[in-house]
Amino acid sequence: MSVEIYGQSYPIVSKANPAHMREVASLVDHKMRELAEMNPRLDTTKLAVLSACNIADEFLRLKQEFDELMHLVEDETI
Amino acid sequence: MSVEIYGQSYPIVSKANPAHMREVASLVDHKMRELAEMNPRLDTTKLAVLSACNIADEFLRLKQEFDELMHLVEDETI
Repeated sequence: MSVEIYGQSYPIVSKANPAHMREVASLVDHKMRELAEMNPRLDTTKLAVLSACNIADEFLRLKQEFDELMHLVEDETI
Repeated sequence: MSVEIYGQSYPIVSKANPAHMREVASLVDHKMRELAEMNPRLDTTKLAVLSACNIADEFLRLKQEFDELMHLVEDETI
């Protein structure tokens, strides 16, 4: 299968289900369009790098929340 | 402050603490270098888009795990 991100088609080779891969592509596509609107002068590479940073930022914050929640659950069940 | 990602310097304007922003940049930088090693022919834009997809994939999986754990905790405490 292939997905479209910021007007470019990308072939996807993944064991993940197609709906998940479309959700992934859609998240990146939206982030790039959102950043492009706020920063019309950025070239596509920088847009993509900043989108990656934006998503990595959310990922690391969620990871911290997840770990905290996990510790709480472990404390409760021990 | 600025961070370096895949040999390019990016100015960062963020309220987040500098250590967190460096961790974000490091995650993206590592992902791009890892993908570049596996796919030496990819240009920087595609590398950055695929890195964003990779991180978005991990983010969405973690989000699902987080939501499931959250439901478990809510069921326990009600």
